[in-house]
Amino acid sequence: MENSTPSAEAARPAEEVRLERALAALRDRGPLVQCLTNTVVQQITADVLLAIRAAPAMVDHPQEAPVFAAVADGILVNTGTVSPAQVEAMPAAARAARDAGRPWVLDPVAIGSLPVRTPLAHELLELGPTAIRGNASEIAALAGTGRGGRGVDSTDSVDAVLEAARDLAERSGAVVAVSGERDAIVSRHRTTLLTSGDPLMTRVIGTGCSLGASCAAVLGATRDTDLTAHDAVLAAHALLGAAGTRAARTAEGVGSFAVAWLDALDALTPADVLGIVQLDERGISPVAGA
Amino acid sequence: MENSTPSAEAARPAEEVRLERALAALRDRGPLVQCLTNTVVQQITADVLLAIRAAPAMVDHPQEAPVFAAVADGILVNTGTVSPAQVEAMPAAARAARDAGRPWVLDPVAIGSLPVRTPLAHELLELGPTAIRGNASEIAALAGTGRGGRGVDSTDSVDAVLEAARDLAERSGAVVAVSGERDAIVSRHRTTLLTSGDPLMTRVIGTGCSLGASCAAVLGATRDTDLTAHDAVLAAHALLGAAGTRAARTAEGVGSFAVAWLDALDALTPADVLGIVQLDERGISPVAGA
Amino acid sequence: MENSTPSAEAARPAEEVRLERALAALRDRGPLVQCLTNTVVQQITADVLLAIRAAPAMVDHPQEAPVFAAVADGILVNTGTVSPAQVEAMPAAARAARDAGRPWVLDPVAIGSLPVRTPLAHELLELGPTAIRGNASEIAALAGTGRGGRGVDSTDSVDAVLEAARDLAERSGAVVAVSGERDAIVSRHRTTLLTSGDPLMTRVIGTGCSLGASCAAVLGATRDTDLTAHDAVLAAHALLGAAGTRAARTAEGVGSFAVAWLDALDALTPADVLGIVQLDERGISPVAGA
Repeated sequence: MENSTPSAEAARPAEEVRLERALAALRDRGPLVQCLTNTVVQQITADVLLAIRAAPAMVDHPQEAPVFAAVADGILVNTGTVSPAQVEAMPAAARAARDAGRPWVLDPVAIGSLPVRTPLAHELLELGPTAIRGNASEIAALAGTGRGGRGVDSTDSVDAVLEAARDLAERSGAVVAVSGERDAIVSRHRTTLLTSGDPLMTRVIGTGCSLGASCAAVLGATRDTDLTAHDAVLAAHALLGAAGTRAARTAEGVGSFAVAWLDALDALTPADVLGIVQLDERGISPVAGA
Repeated sequence: MENSTPSAEAARPAEEVRLERALAALRDRGPLVQCLTNTVVQQITADVLLAIRAAPAMVDHPQEAPVFAAVADGILVNTGTVSPAQVEAMPAAARAARDAGRPWVLDPVAIGSLPVRTPLAHELLELGPTAIRGNASEIAALAGTGRGGRGVDSTDSVDAVLEAARDLAERSGAVVAVSGERDAIVSRHRTTLLTSGDPLMTRVIGTGCSLGASCAAVLGATRDTDLTAHDAVLAAHALLGAAGTRAARTAEGVGSFAVAWLDALDALTPADVLGIVQLDERGISPVAGA
Repeated sequence: MENSTPSAEAARPAEEVRLERALAALRDRGPLVQCLTNTVVQQITADVLLAIRAAPAMVDHPQEAPVFAAVADGILVNTGTVSPAQVEAMPAAARAARDAGRPWVLDPVAIGSLPVRTPLAHELLELGPTAIRGNASEIAALAGTGRGGRGVDSTDSVDAVLEAARDLAERSGAVVAVSGERDAIVSRHRTTLLTSGDPLMTRVIGTGCSLGASCAAVLGATRDTDLTAHDAVLAAHALLGAAGTRAARTAEGVGSFAVAWLDALDALTPADVLGIVQLDERGISPVAGA
């Protein structure tokens, strides 16, 4: 925004201006992000947060997690490798975040038929997440309309799950983000379809889980502003997707793609991001009967 | 195989044809691989599985692990950082895999004198692993003839442990794979010595543990075919080793080697792999007195 | 040392000669390093140890950790993601290390206000760590003079905490290392200020935690020599910092920096390290009133 003249500003859609402001806030504020997440992706999640100028802290001991959640700028709760200790820590952290007015993100990894994480995710949903992020199968399972995927894979398409996402957003008040070939960001009065990224992103572990953490980061960076949670979640998706598009230009395979993706996350300016991604705003999309 | 003419096919050893078919099945089928593995290598294991076209899922909660093992294509049980919860989950998952007819791989990391993982590995051995993968010290310890290594290092040579491997294969019915300068793949009626890889592989964490996961992947991809478990385990070793050979050509150290290795895993065709590795088939090798 | 003529040797400060000897011992001896550390950085910690020629083993089960600590060359205890099992394992391992005369390093990650790790770190301090490594906030919190930082970040400067470090070294007998823009290595009768590294090191997860593990590695490699613990801890800091300086020359961002850093750790000779870093020896620095 700082680089635009008032007249150019006026000519741009308000949604783009707000997305750019959300990314600028992320870089300026360096939000502290607490992650209760799976052990597979902790390293790349922390590296992604550092690359986008956030500060990661993976505090998930049942006695420590709620203490930290009350002071973190944003909190991620990801069920990917849920442990007995995390089953206790996650609701405690979510409650502490809610009570302290801190934004928190639910990433219901691989829910559907697995007997520990599935009821846990439904319990967490009742604690009022600011945002929910998952693939189509996970969102459908949380909405009660799907059967879950196979592991972190998704077996439902984004379009098929859009109605479920709208229903979930309506019921929970959360921003619901569905990752796929196109991402859908859905809240009560707004639906945005985002085209960005590269198929290589699905072949590096942790790109999706890092997206959940990045949503918590941008939500944390913008929580005292006039920007909405929808703006923040959309900005996180745009940034990580744009970095994927950029990285794919030079990658020679999945290994060099992961390295180039981190470099791009570090390098891309808010204006760069807007120059790479495509937004399709759908405006108010009331759920029939709601 | 698809790229060979019948006459060329006829001129090649049957073992090579089957190895190439196993790798083609891996790429075509994208097997779902459940890993109950150590927390040190979960990220690189997942990235290796994605690079070779498998789908990783690190489900290891005691209540969830057996549910998932009944539907996964292949399962890895690796004792590298065994936790109290894993001590419970691993036998449960192995039993579920066995009962559902799913191939599973035992990687008895650092067994020998450590008091939790050593009896656990022997308990797991009784549950009928499809394959067992380890370094010479670990295989000797599991066979009851060695004293274990120091951590993930090996203090016994492959040749010295070959007799122990044959004995273990005879008693358990599993394919036994011993990693070293040359790898030995041993089953009741076949021994294959494989030359591939590069010494740099021993200086990147997780190359061995990823090999166990990759064995589970190829076993899963070939489980409804006429290919044997020996073919599958050999194919996994050949693929990861060939990628190491390829990566060493451009690496400037251990960091760039790891990146190039993932790129090579992604890029190598089955024919490329056969062009890089050397196989030494020893045919039927009965154990004296068995 | 081996590459210097006696006359050149004589002209160099004794501290530099000992630092170079410590690094040579690391390369020659390949110490076995046990890490009870946080799950976020286990992979990069293991890769760093392998890059510098040490052998990592992440044994942290409460029943196994003390068994292994009695045979490891060096032990790291890092409180970054302390779990219920680690709360039990860490003091047991520290006691076993002490009783077996093995050097061990305490890295009190994020202590200060968190209710599990903070008393745990104070309990561990009573067990006689050979070295303590942390950022300024963590050292101040352990010395009882600070309020802790926010996560792994530091909110106090190195200079401000120097007096706390000297007090902690005096009371505990440990070498106390404070990481920052300049590192301070403080023991009862010696303070060394080290200038090395690059700001990019703070933007890759695990560079600090790997430093704690590397201290344990050099301490293990030099434990039967005339070199002091101060020499060993300083050498570890110099090596990792010099590799950061080298890596920053070619990095295009945080991703490629991490790769280049591992390559540099692998490639740098002891003489290279001394050519890159700057040492400022402060000699005997008694604590007032001690």
